[in-house]
Amino acid sequence: MFKVNDNYLKLPGSYLFSTVGRKQREYQAAHPDKKVIRLSIGDVTQPLAPVILEALHSAVDEMGNAETFRGYAPDLGYEFLRNAIADNDYKARGCDISADEIFVSDGAKCDCSNIQEIFSLDNKIAVCDPVYPVYVDSNVMAGRTGTYDKNTEIWSDVIYMPCTADNNFTPEIPKETPDLIYLCFPNNPTGATVNKAQLQEWVDYANKVGAVILYDAAYEAYISEEDVPHSIYECDGARTCAIEMRSFSKNAGFTGVRLGFTVIPKELKAEDVSLHALWTRRHGTKYNGAPYIIQRAGEAVYSEGGKEQLKAQVAYYMNNARYIYNGLKEAGYTVSGGVNAPYIWLKTPGNMTSWEFFDYLLGNANVVGTPGSGFGPSGEHYFRLTAFGSYESTVEAIDRIKAMKL
Amino acid sequence: MFKVNDNYLKLPGSYLFSTVGRKQREYQAAHPDKKVIRLSIGDVTQPLAPVILEALHSAVDEMGNAETFRGYAPDLGYEFLRNAIADNDYKARGCDISADEIFVSDGAKCDCSNIQEIFSLDNKIAVCDPVYPVYVDSNVMAGRTGTYDKNTEIWSDVIYMPCTADNNFTPEIPKETPDLIYLCFPNNPTGATVNKAQLQEWVDYANKVGAVILYDAAYEAYISEEDVPHSIYECDGARTCAIEMRSFSKNAGFTGVRLGFTVIPKELKAEDVSLHALWTRRHGTKYNGAPYIIQRAGEAVYSEGGKEQLKAQVAYYMNNARYIYNGLKEAGYTVSGGVNAPYIWLKTPGNMTSWEFFDYLLGNANVVGTPGSGFGPSGEHYFRLTAFGSYESTVEAIDRIKAMKL
Repeated sequence: MFKVNDNYLKLPGSYLFSTVGRKQREYQAAHPDKKVIRLSIGDVTQPLAPVILEALHSAVDEMGNAETFRGYAPDLGYEFLRNAIADNDYKARGCDISADEIFVSDGAKCDCSNIQEIFSLDNKIAVCDPVYPVYVDSNVMAGRTGTYDKNTEIWSDVIYMPCTADNNFTPEIPKETPDLIYLCFPNNPTGATVNKAQLQEWVDYANKVGAVILYDAAYEAYISEEDVPHSIYECDGARTCAIEMRSFSKNAGFTGVRLGFTVIPKELKAEDVSLHALWTRRHGTKYNGAPYIIQRAGEAVYSEGGKEQLKAQVAYYMNNARYIYNGLKEAGYTVSGGVNAPYIWLKTPGNMTSWEFFDYLLGNANVVGTPGSGFGPSGEHYFRLTAFGSYESTVEAIDRIKAMKL
Repeated sequence: MFKVNDNYLKLPGSYLFSTVGRKQREYQAAHPDKKVIRLSIGDVTQPLAPVILEALHSAVDEMGNAETFRGYAPDLGYEFLRNAIADNDYKARGCDISADEIFVSDGAKCDCSNIQEIFSLDNKIAVCDPVYPVYVDSNVMAGRTGTYDKNTEIWSDVIYMPCTADNNFTPEIPKETPDLIYLCFPNNPTGATVNKAQLQEWVDYANKVGAVILYDAAYEAYISEEDVPHSIYECDGARTCAIEMRSFSKNAGFTGVRLGFTVIPKELKAEDVSLHALWTRRHGTKYNGAPYIIQRAGEAVYSEGGKEQLKAQVAYYMNNARYIYNGLKEAGYTVSGGVNAPYIWLKTPGNMTSWEFFDYLLGNANVVGTPGSGFGPSGEHYFRLTAFGSYESTVEAIDRIKAMKL
């Protein structure tokens, strides 16, 4: 008789954003007259930039012609895209990353949940707390996290690195030595960042203890301050300890287009086994590449027109971020984030739990946000709002929150 | 110090088609004057059908407009596509499958390599031998296959079901009881099929012993004979024992477009744990959906125009299949397949090993095929040619093979 992977059964509840979505739909169904505004899931709302639309149309035309039709893509992705990434995201910032160290994929969510697969099940992970839930959940499914304590919401075999107001929402080197360290800067959900010297400390630490940093830089396009690194490869020694994951979802509005990539430097090895070789094998065996037309859209992101149009798109969302940040401050909330990231992180008023505030906000302002506790135990009593709505709906949501009785 | 997943290190050599590709490139580099024809990897060559191009263009336009822009897709895929699949692939054939039992993905390769993840590592798999290498390789990576014997090319914990000329290339119920049974009909690489009564035996067997059938129906569009089932759900009782995986790659030329789906009936359970719920959780946590524009292209496959245009495309490839089959017969080869599948399976001449014949064919006829041994130990001394080339190159390849001295 077959048996299931019972690690799945250890997962408490459903995936955070599925629950948020379900609660919103239930509320809307019960109150069809209310206009609910979503500032919850980090989903973009602005249409694709004209340069990207042009690239998509042109690639579709190529697929209609036998001479230019493309079947299976190369395992690591098309060179035109990997070259554009290497030149613009890395070489232009002084990072020594070559095109054949870049693996194109259908998104950072897939990559950051699949990357754990090339590591031993004995490896111990460290995560920022709070953080994007996929890091922990994917390790739960693999059986790497031990047992779950329902009261503390803590996994016995995960090293949590609390990011709270006390440490300005940036993690400290943990007491126990991890094998795999998930870092995400600008952080989802807090919007916090580290400067280059702080990130260098993490790289030095990882090299010293033989850990791998899994660096999620999905929000790097939102960095506005000078001293904040866009890539971990800006730090010395990162080539021997760091894997970087990137997404086109947030810098180019590709949440529904699906494109991302992972960088694995060739020096990154456990004894003489190269992680680059293992991930190559995984791509070759378990994946078949992002669609050709989507890879052409990714290439357009790096064109002169693409850069200009997307800079304007990022500025549009960051204008929302400022509106949310300032509006909540005025209303008396304790707020952070929103400067180098499209996320605003707020303390729930009156010591409400995160889910209590979720229900309160939905019921009283008809605004959907994301409960901080869904991102880890230290997220309790916090709440995330995103800047990815339209300007009009963002203004309306914040005005409603300001008018809301606490 | 971090450690790697050493199951990866057990894999012999690189992924089959990566090796085939490398050998072809090396030969071409050494003989730049030779026109090499590829009848190896199952990659299509005909351009996308007009109806599909239209759907793609129109969906791209939608993404350029704030009112019709789409971000993250629903976890299971868009309803318009899941409804079209349920109606056309299942209800129209009398199969009781509903839209919410269908999980849209970026292809059958991903699904059939990821599906093992929801099962216990203790489960024992059974595979046809020869078969598509991804089933075994993905289980090797997960650690489910025991040790590899280099001489016999056999994994200690895999149940092999030899498919040879003796049993007309169809598997027999194995002596040892498996937990997970991978079946692929029409089979890749042999092109063999089973009739409905034979498939019913497998369903009855799986229900009796409590096994799950992982049914890969990627080639169902190529079935030309009446009594060959297109879906395992044509059999009674399949809803309690079978998962079906489908691809748009071969029926609609989507190898570079990337779309597929997996069906998990809600009755399929281990005690009271529903596999549908586990796969839902995996989709929600580790995947972010196929691109919206690609899902619209998938919908167009089921339109009246799509059906007509794709029927012509399948007929085009099957005309190639007939040319290959008949040509090889005339040249004295022992040949099977090619009637309900775009694959022709031939016995290597003069007792050559599969890789010897690969080199011989490449060197003497400048034709690339796929060595049968790459699909499993019982594929040794066999060879696969595909009908996915253009008609002109297929004719030229077969004429060269006919002229080749053996």
